[in-house]
Amino acid sequence: MKNNYYNRLKKICTTKDSLLCIGLDFDLDKIQCNNVNDLDSLESFIKDVIDSTIDICPIFKPNFAFYEKYGPQGMVLLKNIVDYINGRSIVIADAKRGDIGNTSKNYASSIFDYYNFDAITISPYMGSDAIEPFIKNPEKGVYLLCLTSNKSAIDFQYKFSDGTYLYEDVANLALSLNYNNNIGLVVGATKQENMKRIKEVAPSLTWLVPGIGAQGGDLEQSVTLSNVNKSIGIINISRSIIYAGNQSLDAIRDAALNFNEKINKILK
Amino acid sequence: MKNNYYNRLKKICTTKDSLLCIGLDFDLDKIQCNNVNDLDSLESFIKDVIDSTIDICPIFKPNFAFYEKYGPQGMVLLKNIVDYINGRSIVIADAKRGDIGNTSKNYASSIFDYYNFDAITISPYMGSDAIEPFIKNPEKGVYLLCLTSNKSAIDFQYKFSDGTYLYEDVANLALSLNYNNNIGLVVGATKQENMKRIKEVAPSLTWLVPGIGAQGGDLEQSVTLSNVNKSIGIINISRSIIYAGNQSLDAIRDAALNFNEKINKILK
Repeated sequence: MKNNYYNRLKKICTTKDSLLCIGLDFDLDKIQCNNVNDLDSLESFIKDVIDSTIDICPIFKPNFAFYEKYGPQGMVLLKNIVDYINGRSIVIADAKRGDIGNTSKNYASSIFDYYNFDAITISPYMGSDAIEPFIKNPEKGVYLLCLTSNKSAIDFQYKFSDGTYLYEDVANLALSLNYNNNIGLVVGATKQENMKRIKEVAPSLTWLVPGIGAQGGDLEQSVTLSNVNKSIGIINISRSIIYAGNQSLDAIRDAALNFNEKINKILK
Repeated sequence: MKNNYYNRLKKICTTKDSLLCIGLDFDLDKIQCNNVNDLDSLESFIKDVIDSTIDICPIFKPNFAFYEKYGPQGMVLLKNIVDYINGRSIVIADAKRGDIGNTSKNYASSIFDYYNFDAITISPYMGSDAIEPFIKNPEKGVYLLCLTSNKSAIDFQYKFSDGTYLYEDVANLALSLNYNNNIGLVVGATKQENMKRIKEVAPSLTWLVPGIGAQGGDLEQSVTLSNVNKSIGIINISRSIIYAGNQSLDAIRDAALNFNEKINKILK
């Protein structure tokens, strides 16, 4: 399948020689540039950031919370961003959706058909019913929350029985549903032993790795563990790039270049 | 705390003598009425349904998927619905959100401040970090996904260790976070023994019970188990009300009245 999600991801990462995923999670309150103060100027700024980085960034990932907070106008902005990227990079909807089948079908229609995202993040709590409507189209990708890097990940994800942690059970289910080769896992940059367990359960699955940069996760370990054999580990950086230095486009590009070089150096 | 979410819920259920929550999950493709064929006519129809039922319905619950699928215009419709209800009933955002703290804060701002919902459903996979931003305001309620009624709930929710199922761990965490008396649980109409276990862990927590009606759950058992002592169990019905009979407003009101009578008969 030429247009299969995994193949598209692999091709674009190879072409741009990069595994970088930039999290487009802009907050009007945090942007220091004087000319960014409303949704219109924010849209221009995000487009400028995309232009400044798209040659070295194969994946962009806007988190929906940062757009939904502005109501319907925020969703217009989000759609304009996806349209602007227009297939030049993969765009992941970081929406963490998940509901019963009939409802997930409508979410899939929203994310893939209306907004035209290439992939989505999904919360696994409700099980396979909640995932299946998102994986039917082999061209669209799904990243299932597996092991997250926030403090309270320990509340449920590390529940252990029959020799496995809950996060391993999630990896195992993802593997069993990967008949279209379009499922990956969200694996936060956490302890090596936990990340290794996931690789053992599902060695072939692609990872989306948040938790580097502002959240303090280990880059070398994450890159090395997630990029083995045919599997691809894409590294998400949000705040450490979009708020880099003086927040000029040069500072943002430099930060992206810098992360890219670090990642590629680890792999060589 | 007079305006505390629990107290408001209790008061409105008592005043309307009802525990009914109508799921406003309309699908343009399923509505048979000839005059409902676009978002404008859908909005009028939903408002008519609200007018036809609001005296006997203390809670409405739109599921976001059914609005997001229409893009930003669907979100305008959603906001208009919440504005139209205007405090006459509780409105729960069935959005199943959940992300790291900084992100959840933005979701809370969207749901509670922009859209002005009274409560939200939350997915628990990421733990307490993901929940805390939603519970800070005692006037706003949170329903944590605990035990769901879909088939694949069994994939993860029944993981058992140290004497508890995962869904019991969720109930336990919810209880520990209920310092503002504004957390409830989503407990699908499933097997009695499982629902009982949740009541044992967290006897005081309010339940939102989906899975009755189209999904086939047991009404009597759900009503009896969830309404004990001071706890409130609200019963969600979506398709069996909004698509009732010939889908006329009379048929919809009759279906709501019928469920209400059944529920109240069980309690008396």
